[in-house]
Amino acid sequence: MGRQDQLPSWNDGAAKAAIVEFVERTVSDAVPVEERVATFDADGTLWCEQPLPVEADFILRRLAELAAADPKLRDRQPWKAAYEHDNKWLGRAITEHYAGDDTKAKVLLGGVASAFAGIGAEEFVSKSGSFLRSAQHPTLGRAYLETAYLPMVELLGYLEANGFTNHIVSGSGGDFMRPISEQMFGIPIERVTGSATVLEYASGGTLTRKAKLGFLDDGPRKPIEIWSRIGRRPLLAGGNSNGDLPMLEFAQHPERPSLRLLVLHDDADREFAYTSGADKALAEAGKSGWTVVSMRDDFATVFGER
Amino acid sequence: MGRQDQLPSWNDGAAKAAIVEFVERTVSDAVPVEERVATFDADGTLWCEQPLPVEADFILRRLAELAAADPKLRDRQPWKAAYEHDNKWLGRAITEHYAGDDTKAKVLLGGVASAFAGIGAEEFVSKSGSFLRSAQHPTLGRAYLETAYLPMVELLGYLEANGFTNHIVSGSGGDFMRPISEQMFGIPIERVTGSATVLEYASGGTLTRKAKLGFLDDGPRKPIEIWSRIGRRPLLAGGNSNGDLPMLEFAQHPERPSLRLLVLHDDADREFAYTSGADKALAEAGKSGWTVVSMRDDFATVFGER
Repeated sequence: MGRQDQLPSWNDGAAKAAIVEFVERTVSDAVPVEERVATFDADGTLWCEQPLPVEADFILRRLAELAAADPKLRDRQPWKAAYEHDNKWLGRAITEHYAGDDTKAKVLLGGVASAFAGIGAEEFVSKSGSFLRSAQHPTLGRAYLETAYLPMVELLGYLEANGFTNHIVSGSGGDFMRPISEQMFGIPIERVTGSATVLEYASGGTLTRKAKLGFLDDGPRKPIEIWSRIGRRPLLAGGNSNGDLPMLEFAQHPERPSLRLLVLHDDADREFAYTSGADKALAEAGKSGWTVVSMRDDFATVFGER
Repeated sequence: MGRQDQLPSWNDGAAKAAIVEFVERTVSDAVPVEERVATFDADGTLWCEQPLPVEADFILRRLAELAAADPKLRDRQPWKAAYEHDNKWLGRAITEHYAGDDTKAKVLLGGVASAFAGIGAEEFVSKSGSFLRSAQHPTLGRAYLETAYLPMVELLGYLEANGFTNHIVSGSGGDFMRPISEQMFGIPIERVTGSATVLEYASGGTLTRKAKLGFLDDGPRKPIEIWSRIGRRPLLAGGNSNGDLPMLEFAQHPERPSLRLLVLHDDADREFAYTSGADKALAEAGKSGWTVVSMRDDFATVFGER
């Protein structure tokens, strides 16, 4: 096309062609810039979520610390699993959640919510930032800061260069990702939405985290939060699991181009291969003609330089 | 000061001086632009809220329509008050709420929540936009679109010209104000937060309003929503009632300039004179040295050209 390729880490193929066609059509249709909204799931869509989501590692380290300090916690889930490094129990909680069984997920989320209870909102962000700027991925041999998918980072930049406003709409905590969203994805903190712990305001001006989940930003909650915060339907939505299905479905306009991207984890050599928790989304993608992004076939490179 | 006055509708005085000093200090301290966050209540702070908040007029017209169509509703509050144009009952609901008694407010809010139940999120915005672009204020002899306080609109522009990002954080509905926030206040829809009706997502991609209040964006909820959406404390917060007190208090930083503005309605000739529901905020302003903006003394002009 005579232009410099703005997506050099994407292989030529249907996914890349669909992206370029969508962006070029948005521009040629002169869609107003304020309507050029793109929303992305984070875990498994923008960065690696295996063997566990990054926030899970952060919280498990905290739960293990708490169990180390208080032996009574060592017989209770999820402190027990955290203290014993029992990743199997934890992985099952996530997998079963995406398959529709929330039993373990609720136990896990109870521990998650309590892990930082009593801590100020700003202190939490400071703690998560310290973790994210220093911790290593357990198996990839790289820092968490280096676990963003390079093609997706390029996509975010390509969209922004074409007048889009990118948002993260994550099942992980909004405050967890905020310290690194700009650095890793070029997305400022006010465009990061995620699951939320209940905050308590106290006279004097403090906000303190309570031991209670406010809402889980997953499934149908994603379009609701998008509407509440952005006030528009996205033109483009990207995800990788059943929890992203409503958000992708929500990215529809009678008079505007739209694009729904579903990242397929089919690259055991370079990342991970799994479709558990993505079956419904993959079926819907097949039925509705959404764009499936094969990490194996569509990503020329998965991660950036270390 | 040899510069063009960017606040020509403000009289010289302590309030204007405090604003200019705060903005100039923010600039001379080189506070990063992303930290220059300003949050404003809407009703009674940016536009007129008497004899009733604008959204109340919108909803009351709807409740009256519903009561006209269904006689059974005519004996029930708040349909009864709406149908009979009984503004006294309605005014008391608001006044008593700000004084700490939520009995009538809950009845009113029940009706409010049900007024547009079953309607799509986008259709609601379309309805509120049609209303706001056409309806007249009941006593001021001007359209609602002309009931913004000109000095506050100038303040928003002055802040924006100095790198600030302005947000509306309203006790009224976010979706209610969004159709006119850009036109009236230069604030895009994604920076409008307000009270929220519960939305239901349905497979296929629709969002429908339920007959239930999600949250009332007032009092301690304002700083919580600010944190959740913006992720920062504001440097400047403006309000006019007890419901804004936590937001004003929240606008504090150990290392940054801050400004808290409390609009005092003391101008019965040009607008309205009332302090009910503002007693605690006024007491705190006196105690903490917050800047009280007297509409009578500080506003050279109250409203813009008709």
